[in-house]
Amino acid sequence: MEAYPKPIVRLIDLLGKLPGVGRKSATRMAFHILYESDQYGESLAEAIVAVKSDIRLCTRCFNLSDGELCAICRSPKRDPHLLCVVEDTKDLIAVEQTGAFSGLYHVLQGHLDPLQGIGPEKLKIEELLERLRHEPIREVILATNPDAAGTATALYLQKRLQPFHLKITRLAQGVPVGGDIEYVDTQTLRASLKQRTEF
Amino acid sequence: MEAYPKPIVRLIDLLGKLPGVGRKSATRMAFHILYESDQYGESLAEAIVAVKSDIRLCTRCFNLSDGELCAICRSPKRDPHLLCVVEDTKDLIAVEQTGAFSGLYHVLQGHLDPLQGIGPEKLKIEELLERLRHEPIREVILATNPDAAGTATALYLQKRLQPFHLKITRLAQGVPVGGDIEYVDTQTLRASLKQRTEF
Repeated sequence: MEAYPKPIVRLIDLLGKLPGVGRKSATRMAFHILYESDQYGESLAEAIVAVKSDIRLCTRCFNLSDGELCAICRSPKRDPHLLCVVEDTKDLIAVEQTGAFSGLYHVLQGHLDPLQGIGPEKLKIEELLERLRHEPIREVILATNPDAAGTATALYLQKRLQPFHLKITRLAQGVPVGGDIEYVDTQTLRASLKQRTEF
Repeated sequence: MEAYPKPIVRLIDLLGKLPGVGRKSATRMAFHILYESDQYGESLAEAIVAVKSDIRLCTRCFNLSDGELCAICRSPKRDPHLLCVVEDTKDLIAVEQTGAFSGLYHVLQGHLDPLQGIGPEKLKIEELLERLRHEPIREVILATNPDAAGTATALYLQKRLQPFHLKITRLAQGVPVGGDIEYVDTQTLRASLKQRTEF
């Protein structure tokens, strides 16, 4: 790589650490940045710094936020009676992208994992209970991941939420829309039979 | 996209302008930057700024460089009798990566394109002739692209170089190594027949 000047090699190295970016794509990106307007490079550098310095957690729901409260908590259009509990922000985004949920969220910041030393006190569970005491929430959807750790977390939460006498729900498990039954794993298919709905 | 704070949306937008990066990859990258150490984000921002501010053209061969002369021109290991003329730095890199060339380069910074108003005076051709007058160059390899514009540029250069009584060569045209003759286009196959070599 004698041919590339050092600043380019350094940029390629750093871009190559991004997920899904190999050496070849990193090189193309670096040259794009080099040949694009100065404006673009500056904006990109600033945006990277800004994302690191300006993003924090919403003090109410622990979603990513650029202020005290996140955009969802600030919005007057959201239904304050409905709360969706997720493990992390990416799950929140996924639910949000369905367009089928108009309530508020609570982001646990992970799931229970005793082997890794992650007990209830490491998650935003006390904060969740505190919200249930003060907010007019009627239904809590436990939308933790449908894997072992997420299910364990949901079961634990269910116990902790019982004293509040709320409606507690979880996401339906079943075959994927547009999927092929032949390729659905046995456990999911079993769940979809159990939870079958009237046609 | 109500769910993402503005600084993240902005970073996703900018990353999405990089070549080969769609909205989904840009989002993954933005979150990677967000969750990685502060050190990484800072380094990346700095590297982007550095590549825009520290990279210039080598005053001798017009390769990208971080100083007056590029790494290749500075190297005492390169053969000063052999000069490879290419259109741009990416072509130089491609030749360099073969490991089969140990001479010097001259980067034209483009090819002739009369319809776009790019005549010989817009390329680094006078600078090339000046080098031929002062450097001990014995052979010039015209490695412009094997397309119409590149070939026209090579033909023009060949005329301009004749007074110097140098050896003037160009890259062999033929079938790709590891390729399949069935899929080679007719013109390339014709060239490979014309330029066939002794077995």
